[in-house]
Amino acid sequence: MSLFQKTKQTLPQFTRKLTLKVYFEQVRDGLRQVETRIRQQADFFDAGIHGYVEYATATDGKRIRPALTLLAARATGGETAEHLDLAVIVELIHLASLIHDDVLDNAQLRRARPTVNSKWGVELSVLLGDCLFAHALKLCCRFDDSAVCRLVADAANEVCTGEILQTQRRFDLKLTPADYFNIVSMKTGALFRVSTELAAYLNKQPLTVTEAYRIYGDSLGVAYQIYDDCLDLFGSEDGSGKTLGTDLKKGKLTLPLLHVLRQLDGQRLAAVSETIVHGSEDDRAALKAMVMDMGGHIYAVRKAQEYLDKAARMLEPLPVNEYAETLKTIARTFAAELDGLK
Amino acid sequence: MSLFQKTKQTLPQFTRKLTLKVYFEQVRDGLRQVETRIRQQADFFDAGIHGYVEYATATDGKRIRPALTLLAARATGGETAEHLDLAVIVELIHLASLIHDDVLDNAQLRRARPTVNSKWGVELSVLLGDCLFAHALKLCCRFDDSAVCRLVADAANEVCTGEILQTQRRFDLKLTPADYFNIVSMKTGALFRVSTELAAYLNKQPLTVTEAYRIYGDSLGVAYQIYDDCLDLFGSEDGSGKTLGTDLKKGKLTLPLLHVLRQLDGQRLAAVSETIVHGSEDDRAALKAMVMDMGGHIYAVRKAQEYLDKAARMLEPLPVNEYAETLKTIARTFAAELDGLK
Repeated sequence: MSLFQKTKQTLPQFTRKLTLKVYFEQVRDGLRQVETRIRQQADFFDAGIHGYVEYATATDGKRIRPALTLLAARATGGETAEHLDLAVIVELIHLASLIHDDVLDNAQLRRARPTVNSKWGVELSVLLGDCLFAHALKLCCRFDDSAVCRLVADAANEVCTGEILQTQRRFDLKLTPADYFNIVSMKTGALFRVSTELAAYLNKQPLTVTEAYRIYGDSLGVAYQIYDDCLDLFGSEDGSGKTLGTDLKKGKLTLPLLHVLRQLDGQRLAAVSETIVHGSEDDRAALKAMVMDMGGHIYAVRKAQEYLDKAARMLEPLPVNEYAETLKTIARTFAAELDGLK
Repeated sequence: MSLFQKTKQTLPQFTRKLTLKVYFEQVRDGLRQVETRIRQQADFFDAGIHGYVEYATATDGKRIRPALTLLAARATGGETAEHLDLAVIVELIHLASLIHDDVLDNAQLRRARPTVNSKWGVELSVLLGDCLFAHALKLCCRFDDSAVCRLVADAANEVCTGEILQTQRRFDLKLTPADYFNIVSMKTGALFRVSTELAAYLNKQPLTVTEAYRIYGDSLGVAYQIYDDCLDLFGSEDGSGKTLGTDLKKGKLTLPLLHVLRQLDGQRLAAVSETIVHGSEDDRAALKAMVMDMGGHIYAVRKAQEYLDKAARMLEPLPVNEYAETLKTIARTFAAELDGLK
């Protein structure tokens, strides 16, 4: 891979933990209830699969989506029993999608624990994801207003559609950043979006408000995915507790690389393509270094910051309260933390 | 595999097509509308996956579940727009589950066409199944009565749970016929059951009637799965248009074999186990012949007939009309046709 210059630049600290969790303190009680209820879900499954559901739900995940749901609820009138239900449902759908993701990525670790597929194989994982998913949608039918269920099912559909589009475009060097943003908004934005939008909707907020929360959630989700993709490309496994580097290996082209691809001539594009398809560990390391040299990570961080700025701005015109402030602060702090990674 | 005596007995005609379809004539118009609407569903998906959804839905399947839905609707007061919706939803969930089944079985053919996984791989198939599934549940949210959505989501959950239990018990020679019936009632009975039960429920029938239709659907579904499992074990691919013989290869023990296992001593059990785990094509053929010699297929057929008899009997005390008669006739004809396979 002589076309790539080796670089001496050390990778930025993409392993650094975000401090998002600090801001979830305001909804700590609600989150605790959500956590308890997530872990109780195993009891609603057949005894033969209880243990698998228990394992899949007892993660020490950040529960970002539930936290955003509860914050948006409090910001728009208050946290009700329905918001707790919504938070549980959204997280279960997320967990179901992670199980399938890990199958497709053949990932071995998630949050420093063996993945479901690494413990019990592909078959069980596919079916367990289906089961959790069906269960989440069943919980959704409890809402009196069927629009809730429809929007959640829609979001679930979008998550999978985004994943399919991403799968289709693997190894496709013609993928543009615009395509990437579209895919990411579907696969990650959709669940963030439905968390905050429906939180406001359940509080019977007018369309302008639900729409603002919709865009807030979507933008935060897209920024989060950009960050996560940077972590996969540049991070270290020790820091993240999950299998990394799978995107490039599987031909999944993420934002830092896509930015760089646009700047390459045909010969260097062919070399990148060769590296992605047939490259060794060392070739990929050289490619990553080149992406950094050419500012791929800076572009990605800047884009994520733009989305975060948009998220915060969406809530500006709305009534001020401590929870709405926290939501804005989350976006701004996230943006500031990303600054350190440029 | 000297413990198995080769037999000269020819396999019974497990390739024979059931004549069920004749009885669907009474709901031909409704089925045509359901078919049209199933094929229109692709339009509701992202352009990038439209083609996959089109392929997955444009099967020439028997549409048994929709037919039963419509017949049960007519038998209990009439076919409404809601029944057509229900028929579409139930079939979409069935199609989604087939996509995942074919992934797990690594099946290459279904209804004489390449499976989704053989055309586009495992990743796309897992995600496409998820997408179709989410879409079906979204359609479900349209019902004013949220009990419909809940029961459908419940059935979907049961289908996957049944599949998981089945996966867990592969190669498990301690599996009993009772375990098998329980698994089959979940994985196949659940969707049949919800088709007929909800058809009656949407017509606001009393609990005694919805319960009778529930058991009718479940029993028919179990019988159908027993037949399908016999087809996999004894049938020929030419006749069925799908990949057969996968059950035994994957250690999935079905009713004819389970019946025979109970009769074997330790030494022969060990030989069967050896054949299932390591046997060649020839070994498996010898095992199948032994299962027949020992009456495994006769036992399976008899059990299926018992379920069909139960199905017909459930409708006996209910008001007589031509559609209820057809549902009984379907069960009885199916039972009579199975008679020829003993």
